[in-house]
Amino acid sequence: MATSFTQPSAKAGLPPGTLVHIGAKPATAGHITLMRYNSATCQQQPLTNLTEALAYRGSGELLWVQCEGMDIVDMVEAIGAELQVHPLVLEDILNTHQRPKFEEFDDYLFFVVKTLRSTNSLKVEHEQISVLVFADMVFTFREQTDDLFHGIKLRLENPKSRMRFLGTDYLAYAILDLVVDHYFTLADTLEETIESIEVELLAKPQTQIFATIQLLKREMVFIRKAITPMREVLLAVQRNESPLLNQRTQLFFRDVFDHTLRVIDTLDSYRDLINGMLDIYLSSVSNRMNEVMKVLTVFATIFIPLTFLVGVYGMNFDYMPELHWKWAYPLLWLLFFLVPAGLLTLFKRKGWL
Amino acid sequence: MATSFTQPSAKAGLPPGTLVHIGAKPATAGHITLMRYNSATCQQQPLTNLTEALAYRGSGELLWVQCEGMDIVDMVEAIGAELQVHPLVLEDILNTHQRPKFEEFDDYLFFVVKTLRSTNSLKVEHEQISVLVFADMVFTFREQTDDLFHGIKLRLENPKSRMRFLGTDYLAYAILDLVVDHYFTLADTLEETIESIEVELLAKPQTQIFATIQLLKREMVFIRKAITPMREVLLAVQRNESPLLNQRTQLFFRDVFDHTLRVIDTLDSYRDLINGMLDIYLSSVSNRMNEVMKVLTVFATIFIPLTFLVGVYGMNFDYMPELHWKWAYPLLWLLFFLVPAGLLTLFKRKGWL
Amino acid sequence: MATSFTQPSAKAGLPPGTLVHIGAKPATAGHITLMRYNSATCQQQPLTNLTEALAYRGSGELLWVQCEGMDIVDMVEAIGAELQVHPLVLEDILNTHQRPKFEEFDDYLFFVVKTLRSTNSLKVEHEQISVLVFADMVFTFREQTDDLFHGIKLRLENPKSRMRFLGTDYLAYAILDLVVDHYFTLADTLEETIESIEVELLAKPQTQIFATIQLLKREMVFIRKAITPMREVLLAVQRNESPLLNQRTQLFFRDVFDHTLRVIDTLDSYRDLINGMLDIYLSSVSNRMNEVMKVLTVFATIFIPLTFLVGVYGMNFDYMPELHWKWAYPLLWLLFFLVPAGLLTLFKRKGWL
Amino acid sequence: MATSFTQPSAKAGLPPGTLVHIGAKPATAGHITLMRYNSATCQQQPLTNLTEALAYRGSGELLWVQCEGMDIVDMVEAIGAELQVHPLVLEDILNTHQRPKFEEFDDYLFFVVKTLRSTNSLKVEHEQISVLVFADMVFTFREQTDDLFHGIKLRLENPKSRMRFLGTDYLAYAILDLVVDHYFTLADTLEETIESIEVELLAKPQTQIFATIQLLKREMVFIRKAITPMREVLLAVQRNESPLLNQRTQLFFRDVFDHTLRVIDTLDSYRDLINGMLDIYLSSVSNRMNEVMKVLTVFATIFIPLTFLVGVYGMNFDYMPELHWKWAYPLLWLLFFLVPAGLLTLFKRKGWL
Amino acid sequence: MATSFTQPSAKAGLPPGTLVHIGAKPATAGHITLMRYNSATCQQQPLTNLTEALAYRGSGELLWVQCEGMDIVDMVEAIGAELQVHPLVLEDILNTHQRPKFEEFDDYLFFVVKTLRSTNSLKVEHEQISVLVFADMVFTFREQTDDLFHGIKLRLENPKSRMRFLGTDYLAYAILDLVVDHYFTLADTLEETIESIEVELLAKPQTQIFATIQLLKREMVFIRKAITPMREVLLAVQRNESPLLNQRTQLFFRDVFDHTLRVIDTLDSYRDLINGMLDIYLSSVSNRMNEVMKVLTVFATIFIPLTFLVGVYGMNFDYMPELHWKWAYPLLWLLFFLVPAGLLTLFKRKGWL
Repeated sequence: MATSFTQPSAKAGLPPGTLVHIGAKPATAGHITLMRYNSATCQQQPLTNLTEALAYRGSGELLWVQCEGMDIVDMVEAIGAELQVHPLVLEDILNTHQRPKFEEFDDYLFFVVKTLRSTNSLKVEHEQISVLVFADMVFTFREQTDDLFHGIKLRLENPKSRMRFLGTDYLAYAILDLVVDHYFTLADTLEETIESIEVELLAKPQTQIFATIQLLKREMVFIRKAITPMREVLLAVQRNESPLLNQRTQLFFRDVFDHTLRVIDTLDSYRDLINGMLDIYLSSVSNRMNEVMKVLTVFATIFIPLTFLVGVYGMNFDYMPELHWKWAYPLLWLLFFLVPAGLLTLFKRKGWL
Repeated sequence: MATSFTQPSAKAGLPPGTLVHIGAKPATAGHITLMRYNSATCQQQPLTNLTEALAYRGSGELLWVQCEGMDIVDMVEAIGAELQVHPLVLEDILNTHQRPKFEEFDDYLFFVVKTLRSTNSLKVEHEQISVLVFADMVFTFREQTDDLFHGIKLRLENPKSRMRFLGTDYLAYAILDLVVDHYFTLADTLEETIESIEVELLAKPQTQIFATIQLLKREMVFIRKAITPMREVLLAVQRNESPLLNQRTQLFFRDVFDHTLRVIDTLDSYRDLINGMLDIYLSSVSNRMNEVMKVLTVFATIFIPLTFLVGVYGMNFDYMPELHWKWAYPLLWLLFFLVPAGLLTLFKRKGWL
Repeated sequence: MATSFTQPSAKAGLPPGTLVHIGAKPATAGHITLMRYNSATCQQQPLTNLTEALAYRGSGELLWVQCEGMDIVDMVEAIGAELQVHPLVLEDILNTHQRPKFEEFDDYLFFVVKTLRSTNSLKVEHEQISVLVFADMVFTFREQTDDLFHGIKLRLENPKSRMRFLGTDYLAYAILDLVVDHYFTLADTLEETIESIEVELLAKPQTQIFATIQLLKREMVFIRKAITPMREVLLAVQRNESPLLNQRTQLFFRDVFDHTLRVIDTLDSYRDLINGMLDIYLSSVSNRMNEVMKVLTVFATIFIPLTFLVGVYGMNFDYMPELHWKWAYPLLWLLFFLVPAGLLTLFKRKGWL
Repeated sequence: MATSFTQPSAKAGLPPGTLVHIGAKPATAGHITLMRYNSATCQQQPLTNLTEALAYRGSGELLWVQCEGMDIVDMVEAIGAELQVHPLVLEDILNTHQRPKFEEFDDYLFFVVKTLRSTNSLKVEHEQISVLVFADMVFTFREQTDDLFHGIKLRLENPKSRMRFLGTDYLAYAILDLVVDHYFTLADTLEETIESIEVELLAKPQTQIFATIQLLKREMVFIRKAITPMREVLLAVQRNESPLLNQRTQLFFRDVFDHTLRVIDTLDSYRDLINGMLDIYLSSVSNRMNEVMKVLTVFATIFIPLTFLVGVYGMNFDYMPELHWKWAYPLLWLLFFLVPAGLLTLFKRKGWL
Repeated sequence: MATSFTQPSAKAGLPPGTLVHIGAKPATAGHITLMRYNSATCQQQPLTNLTEALAYRGSGELLWVQCEGMDIVDMVEAIGAELQVHPLVLEDILNTHQRPKFEEFDDYLFFVVKTLRSTNSLKVEHEQISVLVFADMVFTFREQTDDLFHGIKLRLENPKSRMRFLGTDYLAYAILDLVVDHYFTLADTLEETIESIEVELLAKPQTQIFATIQLLKREMVFIRKAITPMREVLLAVQRNESPLLNQRTQLFFRDVFDHTLRVIDTLDSYRDLINGMLDIYLSSVSNRMNEVMKVLTVFATIFIPLTFLVGVYGMNFDYMPELHWKWAYPLLWLLFFLVPAGLLTLFKRKGWL
């Protein structure tokens, strides 16, 4: 089971709020990047430590600290102490088996979301992104180190971009929007897979299609489990009245919410399609089997009376007049053709062939 | 998969609010039509540009700008800037993969609805209609260029029509009512298809019926996905207290809401009927198969003892007294008729035939 | 599909509120009856026109105008204009494909309900009854002309009846109660049908039972579709605070509501029973089939070694000592009885018979 | 269908509130018992008429009138008139086909509950108990005359019992608690039945187990139908603010509510278990069938080549050298053992046996 | 049925609040432990009686009385009287068949939760823990005597632990958190079981896998029944405004709530996986069966025409010219190889093999 969501039981019994990294793979080569931007400027620089970022506070710039590839239990603890972040939030950041969630605190907002990317058509890769939103700072924590945020950074570098003029809540929105956009990409991949299975199913149903459909169904279980809570998360954001969420940005969150509803609708219809394909597969397999059995049975049935007849004239009775007729044997051969012909006609008329 | 709802992933990563046309086919020959009407007058004229329409504001007439076949990213941007329409709304207008929705803004209301029309009995064509309702103007955006709105225009030209005396909200209602009326037309077509399948099913269940039922079931998935959100849309309209929605018009929106509930009820019962038909088909196929197998097996079973008997008298023992009896052979033939008759009687009495 | 609920698509495109009669059969011999009653008097008289009824207003009597068999588009229009009834209500009265509903207006209440009566055990006949309740008048519109309201009229004629002392809302309640009582009659008929199928199922499962169960299941889809919305209707009545609904009458509406819940519960359990019967039928059919196949296969299996044996002694080898033994042939016959007996014993012990 | 819930249709058309006894069997030997109790005293006496009880009001004692085996339409009417009980309540008392319900009136509360008792493991007996709770009196109406209330009476006779110090609402609670306790007894019986079926299922799945499981499933439909509404009833009691319901007693009602939730949970899990057992039964039947068919088919298959061989040497060609070899016949017999052995080995290796 | 939830019916009829121990096994060697702690100190001592604990109240220390292995009906009664605990709560403590619940009283809070531990991969052991939370005392009642609370005690002994500085509500939270952590451990075990079944299923589907899957499904019914109510319990805690629940601790309860949601999500996806495995198993069994039957049928079919042929030349007609041809017999043997080869080629081309 490649896709696992449970919290390793090693943690059971530890006091809540104990900071231990729990995740798939401790990243070997993580890095921390700081982006400082406002309407006038936008600069990017690497950091070696999360706390360095705090030095730039109060400069009138918004700070976005991107922490990718986490080997940073100590740093998280330090920054948590510095910014008075609740220990449970710190724990959630380090434990990458969270359910997507949104939590409001006095000074900051906390998001956990899941990106889903299809590595190939039937395996889906999950990644957790934790987002801490302060009035002037945003921290993002990821496990991977790829360029997921590339598009957002490009936009930030564009001096006319709306992001440059709006607050940290808009940056948080941009991240959520990116994540939901990836769901659509995933849905597209799923759609292609479904289409190709449908084509194959019409052409020739084979045993491996069944395995493929089951795998797809299995992957859908995990995809739905990751995406469905996003609806609640975004509903909670919309109902939230934190001063950190600008009224103007709320319109954008409503838009992501609509997208999430749409992607969930789409996944629901895919599930129906997949179940329909399973029905078609099973029905076509049983159809083929029935067809084979029927033909073979008819074949056997035709020979049964013939075999009886040849048995009759193999008997050794003294008084069997037919045995001595000159044309008996050729006539019997005629019968050997007429009886099957008659039976086949009968079966055809009854619709058995 | 002809019916696709997902947002092309090409958009993933672009800043939200970027105006790109996303849809099935960029219309080659779209046109813009302006209708100006009030209780005294009703005039129709073609426009080459959306912004031309603004010149007619303030004349005491209501304006209905119909934009059909969209190749108009620039125009939408211009009119959006002119009327201060939210960028996300503009984006939704150009992206024709929206979920049906209703949104309230200070100066305008925004509807997205889906018309469904059956091109033939088993394929359903979707079209998105976006409606922007200002106090004195209505913009409608469509992908197709056919005469969908013909009936509404005819009514507008009738000087006694209620539409001439009521506001833009009533025009919006008329459009929604038209869309929901088309759902009933679609439901009628579905009902005819279901009826014809039911007739065929009783006459002679064949393999292609199974495919037809599965196709119908598949199409139902997409129909439901397009229609179900309309319930929420119309509920939101009814609960809305925007000054743009007249109290008098609300009664009419309640009526469309009732119609939507009715059409959803109808679709639900169709789904039950389709599932029932699937059960009947599968059961009748397995019934027929069983019938064939049973008859052939009985047929084989009757010959088995006979074949054994002829084998017995084909043996070459020196001392087999029957072989030398004069009437043995004719008596055996008698047995060849009596044994099957006896077996058939037994099988009939046991209800196996 | 005898039971159809959709609105004919001919209406699509017409302005809402256009008064066209839409229904199963334009009644050929409808009639209008007026009942005038109060605590002192109760009189019944035929009318030729709905508007005649208005002349009796203000006499201190309550008026009940029963319009049965509708060929009265003009009259409905006239009375609508006279009493300022909303055009959509008039449209709903004439269109007999409504969903059960309850609507409150300033001067009147509007109910649409569906009576269900079983013509025979497997076909259910629907009729729509529209009820307009003013403070001093009640209009009822029906398609049929039979004596559905006979019981209510009898009670009205009884000078001690509670109806004579209460308002028009109580009359409306009496009509709804009558309709729901008919649901119980229908439920009784369904129960009898289910019982008789259950008995038949235990006795001998036959193919036509499958068809009967499927028909029953199909009819249940339509019955549920007609009855389920009554729950919402009666909930809406109970939550309504219109001055037309007396507090005292509300208790009675709560009672009808309870009855509706009960009948829906009952239908739900019938649905479960029907599904259970389907399972039993399918399982018993497959059981019988298996039984037949098994016995026949065992039958064939017993003869197989015998046929082999007779074949052995039909061989023409020069050196086959058994052929010349005197008791070989009788001994073989003994074997022909012992081998089947042994096999049968073995099969029995293995539980295959 | 022994368990029937519908209201006999004979009642259809009668005015609501008409007092007619509707129930399974008019009790032949009912009786009325009065218990008078307060903290100081507790007396029990038989009554011949309900109205006699009223004479004891105002004595500072609480009155509990137990009416068992109802042939008392007149008495109910009389007491209803005396105490101004709503006619619909009187009707509900006499009609024993009610849904469990709770209704609040100014002077009294009205409960309808259903006791369920298993007469044997697969048939459940329903009884309706109607409870009228006044500030100083409780009326209970039952169909049966057995000692259902024995435990409550014993407690009342105990001078230290809490019941002696609390009001009529506590007595009502005690009755509901008794009813729900019987649900647990029923659940225990069901559990035993399920356990014994599970054991039997593992030992040897037989056709009558299928019938037993189906019967159990059928009975579950009716049990759920009777118990599920209790949840709403007790929720309504908890939300009720009638002065007749003491704050202190509410805690007890919350407790019965918890019990009801628990019993519903338990029934839900039983339903899952029963469905699981059905799956296991069906799968094991088909497994056994497959096993039998497979063995017999293999058996037949082994003899097929042998029968062919003996046929070969039964042919009458002039030139068949083998026929004249001395060791041909014994060698053939050797083959008759080697071929089956080879085939069996092959089938075993392929996993077909 | 090892896992039983119902309340033994022996209790039916007893007055509510009667203190009788109801549970799986009266513990033979229970013990009571008292922990006294505050920010300065933490001491543990054994008690022989619950009431002894009361002597330590008012010392400024928080008291945690752990009662493990209950044979203590009298003690519970005594402590209940002393602390004025509601009799129904005492009853719930002694009856270990409760549904998880949370109840608020003026002076104390009452929790019932269920720990689930897998003894081996397919059997789950339930234990009920009742928690009484006063402002300065916490009572925990368990059936088992193992070291479940070991981790919590260790943390209490750590002078820097957050528990030492927070109130009894935090201790209650710690217990709930421990219980929910054990659900994750259980989920891990389930996941391992599912994984191992999946592997086995791919390798070779055997009959005992079906039993294993069914057992797993059965156990899931009970697990879900125990865990699902925790959602309501924790929701009720979060909505509660008792002064006993500190605002700061509420954040922690929200965290356990999130964990519960996550574990329920996980169980839901396991249920889907298990159902998927069942489908795969059934399909693979039927596939294998079909495969066997098909091969054997083809095998039989190939010999049928051969057996017919050898029969032909076993006939005893006087005039059969082939019998006297010299090469007839060898040619026939050639045919015996050609006919099967032809048939096999035909079947292969038709895809039947």
